[in-house]
Amino acid sequence: MSVPKVNLEEKFRQFDDQWNPRIAGEVNDSYVKLVKFQGDFVWHQHDAEDEMFLVVKGRFTMRFRDRDVAVEENEFVIVPKGMEHCPVAEEEAHVLLFEPKTTRNTGNVVNERTREKLDRI
Amino acid sequence: MSVPKVNLEEKFRQFDDQWNPRIAGEVNDSYVKLVKFQGDFVWHQHDAEDEMFLVVKGRFTMRFRDRDVAVEENEFVIVPKGMEHCPVAEEEAHVLLFEPKTTRNTGNVVNERTREKLDRI
Repeated sequence: MSVPKVNLEEKFRQFDDQWNPRIAGEVNDSYVKLVKFQGDFVWHQHDAEDEMFLVVKGRFTMRFRDRDVAVEENEFVIVPKGMEHCPVAEEEAHVLLFEPKTTRNTGNVVNERTREKLDRI
Repeated sequence: MSVPKVNLEEKFRQFDDQWNPRIAGEVNDSYVKLVKFQGDFVWHQHDAEDEMFLVVKGRFTMRFRDRDVAVEENEFVIVPKGMEHCPVAEEEAHVLLFEPKTTRNTGNVVNERTREKLDRI
């Protein structure tokens, strides 16, 4: 079995569209996903899944109903299951996600931002 | 419920000892761990758990029985369950691990490097 190493910068160069996560790795029941954020996403929650956001480049703000958390490069937040959140980014941010394979990007919401099937890179 | 953000550099400043992972976050059934590598670890495997290694600072080599993989800053490897491996680092490397809560650092081996209970930072 091969064990490819993944270079984050190289993977982020492979796509341009925002809010469309790619699968970059598989660890047990979870995926490592890479996504570019810019602008406002959609308020949503994941009823049964925690979700980790690690900023690889740039910065974004995770909005919660009671406050905002600014997440800078080389920082991460873990959004606990059931908590409404909405990521927003003034400028493009490169973000690594760690979450269960079952996690839908827009959680309990289905709209034009929803990506039911993700590409692998 | 609070959602603390985690700054990787700040967390790595909080400990000096090598090969002693700290728990920096919890995502569903997995932990995010931070560990400093230097020198040779121990050959081992995890029979039921994949393990992800992301280099935050420096570099290390993941040895497998059939080859070595050099992992640089902002690169990761995922070691599949059941595959023997041994991390080695000439100079100190700062590494983020993503793995199930049940994963023991030395896998199927128990020796002086084994850490059965990890501190949280």
